[in-house]
Parts: sequence; C-alpha cells; structure tokens
Amino acid sequence: MGFWKTWFSTSESTAASRTGAFEEMSADVMGNSSPSSDRIVFSTEREIDLYELEELCDAVGWSRRPLRKVKKAIEHSFLVATMWQVRGNQRRLIGFARATSDHAFNATIWDVVVHPDFQGKGLGKALMKYVLKKLRSEEISNVTLFADPHVVDFYRTMGFMADPEGIKGMFWYPH
Amino acid sequence: MGFWKTWFSTSESTAASRTGAFEEMSADVMGNSSPSSDRIVFSTEREIDLYELEELCDAVGWSRRPLRKVKKAIEHSFLVATMWQVRGNQRRLIGFARATSDHAFNATIWDVVVHPDFQGKGLGKALMKYVLKKLRSEEISNVTLFADPHVVDFYRTMGFMADPEGIKGMFWYPH
Repeated sequence: MGFWKTWFSTSESTAASRTGAFEEMSADVMGNSSPSSDRIVFSTEREIDLYELEELCDAVGWSRRPLRKVKKAIEHSFLVATMWQVRGNQRRLIGFARATSDHAFNATIWDVVVHPDFQGKGLGKALMKYVLKKLRSEEISNVTLFADPHVVDFYRTMGFMADPEGIKGMFWYPH
Repeated sequence: MGFWKTWFSTSESTAASRTGAFEEMSADVMGNSSPSSDRIVFSTEREIDLYELEELCDAVGWSRRPLRKVKKAIEHSFLVATMWQVRGNQRRLIGFARATSDHAFNATIWDVVVHPDFQGKGLGKALMKYVLKKLRSEEISNVTLFADPHVVDFYRTMGFMADPEGIKGMFWYPH
C-alpha cells in the first residue's frame, strides 16, 4: 500500500502546485531520496533523454523513429507525460504518453507506453489517469486516441468509447 | 472546365510560392479581381473573420461554440485551410478545415465544413486534397480524422481507411 500511497500523494501534490499550463514536477520532488522503498512519480517535464525514451520504446518492440523527429514531436505536443521509478537518487523512465491538441476543444493521445517490467501493476491506468487529469485541467472537452485492438478493452475500462454514435477513426498514409 | 482550371492553377501557384511552414496565399492572389467568372481559391491564412466562420458552421447546423475558444483552436492548429468563392473583389468563406499535429508524425483533421450551397460540386474533395497536400509537404506521415457515419464513404474515396488493422478511434468525455 505504501507504493500506491506514494504515487497518489505525489500525483496530488503536483496538481496542487500547478502554476501554468505545463507545470513541471519540481526537481526536489523528482530527485527526492527515499531510501526505504521505490517510488513512482509522474511529470510533465519535457527535458527527456531521447536515448532513454528510445530504450523504453525498444522494450515494447516499437519500430525505431529518427530522434530528430521524436524531439520535434515532443516539442510540439500539447502534453508530454512521463512516469518514473525513483530509487534513492536514481530515476528510471518506465512510462510515457503525449497528446496533441488545439488547446481548446480536442486532444489526441499518442505513444502510450509502459515498460514491460512494470506492466500488470495498474501503472498504465495510473499514467492514463494522470494524462486525463492534466487534459481536463486545461478544459479540453474531447479527448481522443487510436487504440490497437489488444488495448481497446483497457481504454474502455478508463471510460473511452469506441466509435461513439458511429464515428469512425480513419487513417490516410502518403502514397 | 474554366472553373476547375482556375482552382487547380491557384492551388499549384500557392504550393510553388511556399516560403515556410505556414505560407499564406498572397493578398494579391486572394483579392485578385476576375470579373468574368467566380473563382474558388484556397488559403492557409489564419486571419479569419470569426463571425463569418460561425455563419458557415451555422449553415451546416453545427452547435455554436464560444468564439474565444474557436480563436484559440485556430491559433493552435497546425494547419488552417479555408476555401473562398471570389467574385470580383468580393470573397466569401465557403469551406474550412483545420488539423492538429505534433509537426513530425501525426496530424488529425477537425472541423471540415463546406457550405451547403457549394456541396455536391466536388469542392469538399478539393478542400481535402488541399489539406492533404499541405500536410504531406510538411512530411506528416500519418493523417487521421474522426468521421461521422454519413461521411465515412466520402473519406474512403479520398484514400482514408477506417479502423486499419483493427485500430479503433476512441473518445473520452469529462464526467
């Protein structure tokens, strides 16, 4: 229970300390040493080591993408959310998600990933809750995503609806 | 045929004069007088009269949205595309579409509208071709949208695929 309490309380304290659209978890919180146990913390800080992010994406088998483009995508995302395992003064990137948005009506969540070592513990759900809380605090009224077949049920449990009122997600690829 | 030739040639000349990510059709082109016939022109210019846009959206029966938020959404869209009927030195807004994007991988098209008086003439398709050309010129590799049931077939004819490989569009609304 200490584990869960930690990330819930961390999450709450972050919300309480919001000062702008893209608040950062303070360096103090992020680097706070807690020698007795691991902690899971969330951040909207965008200064991410792109190699560490690539390693995380490699771990779930995603195709590699040019880091130059990943950097650009992060810069131009409305929200970038990361999840960290903090052990003493070490931190490890274990989850990531980002969202594009018009800052007014719609947001679309992309690239949701949780490291395989940390899957099955409710952390994907925790990461998504963090993302939704952030988007909601920005008064985004319509949050969308495109779900691979094996995660459709996961997103359903989070309150997402597939094809509401027959609305279809559609894709176009250059040809 | 003159009609079609006009908008195709206008469209091409715009592409040729690209100078940045968000080029604008020049005021000269937009206001160019052509007393002999109506012309349809396209623009990525964002200085849109919000009341004129509201009128266009009213005409297709959309719910009104606060203009403050519409303004913000336009400012924070990656691409804003408008379609105009130009008659002499008058211009009338007859189509609109915009896209959010991470500027690198994904774009999502929102708010595609063509005035009812101009529907059934292939202008929706022309507007979408303009949007896709602009997105493609920015090296966006994945263009997405959420289609209402009655326009799914329209987007299919444009090369969009519904639920490719079982990927589902999903929505979450605040509760």
